[in-house]
Amino acid sequence: LNIQLALDRFEIERAIAIARLAAPYVQWIEVGTSMIKQFGMDSVRAVRRAFPDHIVVADMKTFDNAAYEFDMCFDAGADAATVMGAAPPITVEACMNVGARRGKRVMIDLLQTTEEEQVLLTAYRDAVFCVHVSKDEQELAAGGGTLACAGERSPLLRLKRQGLLTAVAGGITLDALPGLTALRPDVVIVGSAITLADDPAGAAGAFQESLHLRTE
Amino acid sequence: LNIQLALDRFEIERAIAIARLAAPYVQWIEVGTSMIKQFGMDSVRAVRRAFPDHIVVADMKTFDNAAYEFDMCFDAGADAATVMGAAPPITVEACMNVGARRGKRVMIDLLQTTEEEQVLLTAYRDAVFCVHVSKDEQELAAGGGTLACAGERSPLLRLKRQGLLTAVAGGITLDALPGLTALRPDVVIVGSAITLADDPAGAAGAFQESLHLRTE
Repeated sequence: LNIQLALDRFEIERAIAIARLAAPYVQWIEVGTSMIKQFGMDSVRAVRRAFPDHIVVADMKTFDNAAYEFDMCFDAGADAATVMGAAPPITVEACMNVGARRGKRVMIDLLQTTEEEQVLLTAYRDAVFCVHVSKDEQELAAGGGTLACAGERSPLLRLKRQGLLTAVAGGITLDALPGLTALRPDVVIVGSAITLADDPAGAAGAFQESLHLRTE
Repeated sequence: LNIQLALDRFEIERAIAIARLAAPYVQWIEVGTSMIKQFGMDSVRAVRRAFPDHIVVADMKTFDNAAYEFDMCFDAGADAATVMGAAPPITVEACMNVGARRGKRVMIDLLQTTEEEQVLLTAYRDAVFCVHVSKDEQELAAGGGTLACAGERSPLLRLKRQGLLTAVAGGITLDALPGLTALRPDVVIVGSAITLADDPAGAAGAFQESLHLRTE
């Protein structure tokens, strides 16, 4: 079980400084969409340089222009990139093809997909399927957003039963971990609970410890 | 009727050089998603500086983190920005709110939305509704992509009947214009038919002339 540290809404140097504190406790480091749209591929290149031994994920949220965008972020050093499951099927297909060609991971973000769409997407056995409560939805739910990932009807359970790799994202706090780890995701994506903590290293360490306890 | 010149897959300086040639014949200039993800807000700032009198559109394709992303591109000088109609409703709502607060335009990209979703989105009377055949879909359709915008079942007709502002995008060529202008879109988005032409100024001029003939 891996922790993916999501870096969002920071200047590049600040993001890297925070990530250095948390890096010993996380395995994957995500360059968030907000950083990509603000700083472009400089953000991915900088994180790649700073963390040569971590899995670097570019949260591209690709919705079109699949091959161009995926080649762009892989050229910048990303090991994995995201495509929206809600995008046209041909776009998801093209992302999977680029991933296969370049030996990189593709994460399919299931945000705002229907169950029917999810079933079709599970044909991509090599993808990581990310069950995602968005930032905007979290504000709506006033912090209760992650509950939607953890309920009995969570797509996580269905995906795991099919032997697929899964990730979970969206306002995840230390308190929410027990409910989430019961669903056995492969990647738990944590952002502000670490990056905005007074002590990011301590927060990341607490996440790692809690996950190990739960999965022993 | 306005032409929106879409700048995609270029270095910033090259994009601006091409846009300078076409600028006398177009009213809106779009910084494409590929440029935003590659160069970040530097791309929007540079286009804004180069074209102070055009409407500058940032094709953000926002799917989450609405207020942050829209404030970001408006701060960089954009007059308008795009949100995906397929995004969570709370995200579209937040984009509309930022647009209203800042006196900027919001374009809702209808790519991969259902008719049911489109009906709900038409509550946003101030938005521009973009009927969009994506780049990846165009490749699939081998150049026939725009036909999907122009048929009898086109959402354009329905949107216009409701008095909404509309835009149309996706591999639009000079040959496709007659069929499109019959549907009376407010904005025709043209990319490679101008930017990759041997003579971008001539191509843009031909688009303008054809549109004026059609709408007289």
